[in-house]
Amino acid sequence: MTILDNLHVVLVATRNPLNIGAAARAMSNFGVRRLRVVNPYEVAFREARSAVGAAALLAKAEEYASVAEAVVDCRLVVGTTAAGRRELHHPLRHLDAGAQAIRRQLKTGPVALLFGSEKVGLSNHDLSHCHWLMRIPTREEHGSMNLGQAVAVCLYELARGQATARTKATPSRKEKTPAAAGDSERLTQLLLTALDASGYVKPRTKAATEEKLRRMVRRMALNASDTELWLGMLRQMAWKLSAK
Amino acid sequence: MTILDNLHVVLVATRNPLNIGAAARAMSNFGVRRLRVVNPYEVAFREARSAVGAAALLAKAEEYASVAEAVVDCRLVVGTTAAGRRELHHPLRHLDAGAQAIRRQLKTGPVALLFGSEKVGLSNHDLSHCHWLMRIPTREEHGSMNLGQAVAVCLYELARGQATARTKATPSRKEKTPAAAGDSERLTQLLLTALDASGYVKPRTKAATEEKLRRMVRRMALNASDTELWLGMLRQMAWKLSAK
Repeated sequence: MTILDNLHVVLVATRNPLNIGAAARAMSNFGVRRLRVVNPYEVAFREARSAVGAAALLAKAEEYASVAEAVVDCRLVVGTTAAGRRELHHPLRHLDAGAQAIRRQLKTGPVALLFGSEKVGLSNHDLSHCHWLMRIPTREEHGSMNLGQAVAVCLYELARGQATARTKATPSRKEKTPAAAGDSERLTQLLLTALDASGYVKPRTKAATEEKLRRMVRRMALNASDTELWLGMLRQMAWKLSAK
Repeated sequence: MTILDNLHVVLVATRNPLNIGAAARAMSNFGVRRLRVVNPYEVAFREARSAVGAAALLAKAEEYASVAEAVVDCRLVVGTTAAGRRELHHPLRHLDAGAQAIRRQLKTGPVALLFGSEKVGLSNHDLSHCHWLMRIPTREEHGSMNLGQAVAVCLYELARGQATARTKATPSRKEKTPAAAGDSERLTQLLLTALDASGYVKPRTKAATEEKLRRMVRRMALNASDTELWLGMLRQMAWKLSAK
């Protein structure tokens, strides 16, 4: 077992099944095995001929209806981007620095690496589930890469020097363990519920507020025990606010 | 002009024109402009739809009838390989070390980087034109990469530090500025007030709870703008909870 067994490649709303197959092939080339797909455009993606040598990996891909479900067990969620303007809500790291941070996290638990659709990348809603964003240093004038090539480059960088690295057996203490994405999302939803009941949320801007809060919660980078603390506090406040 | 203008990507006997297009796209992504093709299988490769954003580059590709002619002006000729047995006639470098050597040479003159056909790679005859071989460190059990992906990974490594130190996103100042201690304390007190009104705080342990919350708020390490956001939310919840 290597630390790359903790890495989940998550392909969101991919249109061309050949790109899913190409991603699977690159994963197999670099020793990454866990593929998750969210709402692929073509249901028959598992037959993609481009998954040369990676048919078994593709057959075991897990399908999800939402990003939230696909990353629920992950302690770190990273989105990839060709870095347009809108993503400046999030911290942005270049691939080499980002890969280092991801490798550190892979030693302690599951990490999700998200790739968006061919045409538009990750949506603002998808991005709101991410702790930070990572960018392959392409030319500014032509930043947008082919999906399969982007996956290959990212996994090459992540696999750097990993061939023999083993997962550390010692689980870290709760204070050091980051929150699972599922708990961060629960926190986001509870906060939204409490704010709604308090009159803070305006119906017209509710969706935008939700994304703003989701990003903020990820920036807080809470550890597992502080997340529990927050969940307890918000549960109580939401209950009291709704009881009125 | 960068040193990458001295790099010639040479695709030898490529079968699928989509792979030529994908190579062109990756070249454009990483600022490499000179493409040479040797005996492509399909004459109409210049129309490959996969050359997204790289049509001009593909149109200017030079065609040759032999590897010898395609590399005639190059001072260094490097072949890429998934490292089977036969190539042991040649020195073999891993991509990162190989890329360093290539970059040194690019400062003084043209270098050719050869990629073979999808099925069989470079022939022994092709290899005989190479000074040494370079290998992307893929898994031994599944070494063979998709051609377009292999080109992308090699060019990413070669372009490392060449292209875009300028694309670093600069978050606005407020996002980088840590919260003032006074605001953190205001946040702590508002949280305590809201929790108190919700029935979360037990009178006997109030002092201990306050300290626990104060420590937690500092661990959140909020920036100035997230602190403002939290203050607004807590003010609203505390007001509503107290009004009951």
